Amino acid sequence: MQHKILLTDCPDEQGLIARITSVCSNYNLNIIKNNEFVDNSHNRFFMRTELSGEFKENDFEHDLKEQLPVDGNYRLVTNGRKRIVILVTKEAHCLGDILMKAAYGDLNVEIAAVIGNYDTLQNLTEKFDIPFHFISHDGLSRSEHEQRIQAKIAQYQPEYVVLAKYMRILTPELVAAHPHRIINIHHSFLPAFIGARPYQQAYDRGVKMIGATAHFVTNNLDEGPIIEQDVIHTDHNYSAERMASAGRDVEKYVLSQALRFVLQERVFVTGNRTVVFR
Amino acid sequence: MQHKILLTDCPDEQGLIARITSVCSNYNLNIIKNNEFVDNSHNRFFMRTELSGEFKENDFEHDLKEQLPVDGNYRLVTNGRKRIVILVTKEAHCLGDILMKAAYGDLNVEIAAVIGNYDTLQNLTEKFDIPFHFISHDGLSRSEHEQRIQAKIAQYQPEYVVLAKYMRILTPELVAAHPHRIINIHHSFLPAFIGARPYQQAYDRGVKMIGATAHFVTNNLDEGPIIEQDVIHTDHNYSAERMASAGRDVEKYVLSQALRFVLQERVFVTGNRTVVFR
Amino acid sequence: MQHKILLTDCPDEQGLIARITSVCSNYNLNIIKNNEFVDNSHNRFFMRTELSGEFKENDFEHDLKEQLPVDGNYRLVTNGRKRIVILVTKEAHCLGDILMKAAYGDLNVEIAAVIGNYDTLQNLTEKFDIPFHFISHDGLSRSEHEQRIQAKIAQYQPEYVVLAKYMRILTPELVAAHPHRIINIHHSFLPAFIGARPYQQAYDRGVKMIGATAHFVTNNLDEGPIIEQDVIHTDHNYSAERMASAGRDVEKYVLSQALRFVLQERVFVTGNRTVVFR
Amino acid sequence: MQHKILLTDCPDEQGLIARITSVCSNYNLNIIKNNEFVDNSHNRFFMRTELSGEFKENDFEHDLKEQLPVDGNYRLVTNGRKRIVILVTKEAHCLGDILMKAAYGDLNVEIAAVIGNYDTLQNLTEKFDIPFHFISHDGLSRSEHEQRIQAKIAQYQPEYVVLAKYMRILTPELVAAHPHRIINIHHSFLPAFIGARPYQQAYDRGVKMIGATAHFVTNNLDEGPIIEQDVIHTDHNYSAERMASAGRDVEKYVLSQALRFVLQERVFVTGNRTVVFR
Repeated sequence: MQHKILLTDCPDEQGLIARITSVCSNYNLNIIKNNEFVDNSHNRFFMRTELSGEFKENDFEHDLKEQLPVDGNYRLVTNGRKRIVILVTKEAHCLGDILMKAAYGDLNVEIAAVIGNYDTLQNLTEKFDIPFHFISHDGLSRSEHEQRIQAKIAQYQPEYVVLAKYMRILTPELVAAHPHRIINIHHSFLPAFIGARPYQQAYDRGVKMIGATAHFVTNNLDEGPIIEQDVIHTDHNYSAERMASAGRDVEKYVLSQALRFVLQERVFVTGNRTVVFR
Repeated sequence: MQHKILLTDCPDEQGLIARITSVCSNYNLNIIKNNEFVDNSHNRFFMRTELSGEFKENDFEHDLKEQLPVDGNYRLVTNGRKRIVILVTKEAHCLGDILMKAAYGDLNVEIAAVIGNYDTLQNLTEKFDIPFHFISHDGLSRSEHEQRIQAKIAQYQPEYVVLAKYMRILTPELVAAHPHRIINIHHSFLPAFIGARPYQQAYDRGVKMIGATAHFVTNNLDEGPIIEQDVIHTDHNYSAERMASAGRDVEKYVLSQALRFVLQERVFVTGNRTVVFR
Repeated sequence: MQHKILLTDCPDEQGLIARITSVCSNYNLNIIKNNEFVDNSHNRFFMRTELSGEFKENDFEHDLKEQLPVDGNYRLVTNGRKRIVILVTKEAHCLGDILMKAAYGDLNVEIAAVIGNYDTLQNLTEKFDIPFHFISHDGLSRSEHEQRIQAKIAQYQPEYVVLAKYMRILTPELVAAHPHRIINIHHSFLPAFIGARPYQQAYDRGVKMIGATAHFVTNNLDEGPIIEQDVIHTDHNYSAERMASAGRDVEKYVLSQALRFVLQERVFVTGNRTVVFR
Repeated sequence: MQHKILLTDCPDEQGLIARITSVCSNYNLNIIKNNEFVDNSHNRFFMRTELSGEFKENDFEHDLKEQLPVDGNYRLVTNGRKRIVILVTKEAHCLGDILMKAAYGDLNVEIAAVIGNYDTLQNLTEKFDIPFHFISHDGLSRSEHEQRIQAKIAQYQPEYVVLAKYMRILTPELVAAHPHRIINIHHSFLPAFIGARPYQQAYDRGVKMIGATAHFVTNNLDEGPIIEQDVIHTDHNYSAERMASAGRDVEKYVLSQALRFVLQERVFVTGNRTVVFR
């Protein structure tokens, strides 16, 4: 008895749920859970179907394809451990949270490697027996630096790349190599406080809450589809430093929550928005 | 072109989604949105299907029944304005919020009448051109009082009864007359602070948050299936009175949110839990 | 036995708390509660002191002034009911919430009048026996329109002006006439989604939370000192309309919370930030 | 120039703030921040005063004592790194969060040692170069076991003891040895779900939120003064296991937040409640 997830993403048309679930039924696959959403603004159909049974994959997929629109997409994936590579700079909190959750079962993930443009977090990473690669940008052009990073990533064939406070902007080439496969945590409740020194900006603006946003990376800086957001209350007693410390708690929570959704194959992208089937 | 919601609630078995949605498809009904959940602990299947099209209801329902397990339930309802009766005692905040939302389009509901065991809220109710019935419990046994209330409710044939801070315990007869059709707001983040003077209890316990819980009424006091909960932060500066005032904000929000879910037919009951399809 | 609040706002220097509270002590005034904050970035001292006792105001204030820096400010106010005027356009939710809270004791406020540039909310206002003045902007220049509004406000001598979804931008003259005395509710978690159709912007951006911000009005549109903010979670199921409906709940909560802080004399402005003594 | 915190806790009487701050002023100590609270239900005065200057401690304290009621308490402490001992059983999330925060500057704390009644977390602790002591309860009476733990704790002279998911009930002797100095994290939004298998209880009850509570340990199990609480939203899709995983995120956040308040000397106990000066 296997357990798989069928992810369908196609133009909307009448009868899709019936046709897809009938194929499942014809193959004696049991639907454990089914989530469906139609994005009317893009006329797009999304469905996540958790299945159990004996899969005759070739036949099943053949029949499934016949029921989908010509330009429909589907993926039939196992609900297992996914492989990721993490990029970092100097801040430890997001990396530490993912390392802990991976080590103790709160994230079903294999961290293949951590790559840093500084070596600050090498020691932390290696405590958890994960390889760390220090690829300095020193003396390299942006493009040269990223080629080295991309080569190192490619070596591990990860399913997702996680930017755990990686503080450099990715080139379009790297983004294009992992479409909707790179997850970033932004130091703010987007679309606010884009740019440098966000907690100083937040302090100067006198906000009463600090937020964080996890999103897929696209070529529009900080503008990719949002996966998860959260906030915590602050008040006038908070200096910019204390806001930053509070921000680290919400950043790490939001990033690991978004990562969990992604690893469990709960997230679709539609236009610049996400569908997250909880 | 009509718009209806099909609500299915039956023992789980393989192929249900395919069979039900195929019937929809056979009748050229378009599925606008479909939510499904299986409660494994009760082996129970729940599905909410928003449909648009031309309904041949008799034929459609005939074919649908053939596809469901013998003891399966379904309801085919319009997505329109529902009729409710509200019961109150003396506190105005929940009633006022529902009156405002009904008057200005934030709740799609017809408030047929408000019934109070005091006349305190008659004036407020009548401001909004809703009939108010003062049915005092004075000098009546609990059973006599409730028979009068039940007779008055029956006169209006409401789909739901809302206890908007109605401070008397309902008899099993009244509860039985409206199974999972009576919604209550509880002055606490259940299961905490059951009983009298909850905000004094909360103050004495020194809590740092105040909550509220909306639930269906069953014969186990304050133990019915929870529909919605929320909290707000407090601190040591809050007296019991100020906690109560903060509590009123969260109570009215949670009750109207729960009511909205119920009115939009998003809520199923399974055992003592709810499924809320957002 | 009287109950007053002493509000001190002056350049910071050593010994201020001792000197101010000693004056209170010399006059046998009991300090019920004392909050103090120094904004180091502006070297400014703020203190809110709740006092009870028999006040010899002239003597007390004379002695107090001697203890403050030359350019220090203080106000000695009663903790009583404050008078406000509310400005509205067409949306009812914030006005309705304030009317309800004023009528039932959750805000200690006298609503002297409501002024609308449409007559949409006249009926609602008058239900609560509050005068409504319809001052249309039709055929008037911005300046003419505001002069009429300002004249009407002046007639009531309010302590604060509340913009409860008043959808016109105030002129510098009106703002200058009520420095840090006009409170606005912004349809967003500022500094995000400034401008028109915010919920459509929020929907397009695919946010996972909806926020609201109450702030004092200054001549920088939507940039005045923030008093309170809050958010509620949304998800991909929320259309722009449903986000707007959720937004109305958080807007009215945030505005009335901010208003409560202001009415209870808990709020100071320092630079473009607020100090809110809870 | 030194930086200290003066913590005053005494019966309330008129003039206390003036008398205490005048002593500070007499010694040319600058008050950076001052928070005061009177618990009227216990007629008790609490003040936290951050001071900078040159301290002549003996003289200052001598003069201070003269100004306090006979049975008044004060502590003059440095705002520096405090020493703690952590007790654990098998769950890693709270310990890991504290280890990370201590290592990377988000908690100003020296973790002197970790003591476990299992050796499960020895490896994690030692990654961070902290001594781990495995003191099994196997074959020991409760009293014998705790005497060994207490002896080990005593060896380190910690200022606070943190129960980071330590799953055994402390004896009155151990509690009495550290009055209001032992901090526990409870797997629930107290006072709900006291006892075993809380997330199964929460699941069975169908709650829509999961909470956590950090509190000082007293001899009334789970009834000690609450320092901090928070919640996260869940829904019907959450199994008891997934609730537990969500619970771990909120538990570790609440515990480290409470610990931060305690380490920064922001917390007083009054009756069974806390005052937390943010």
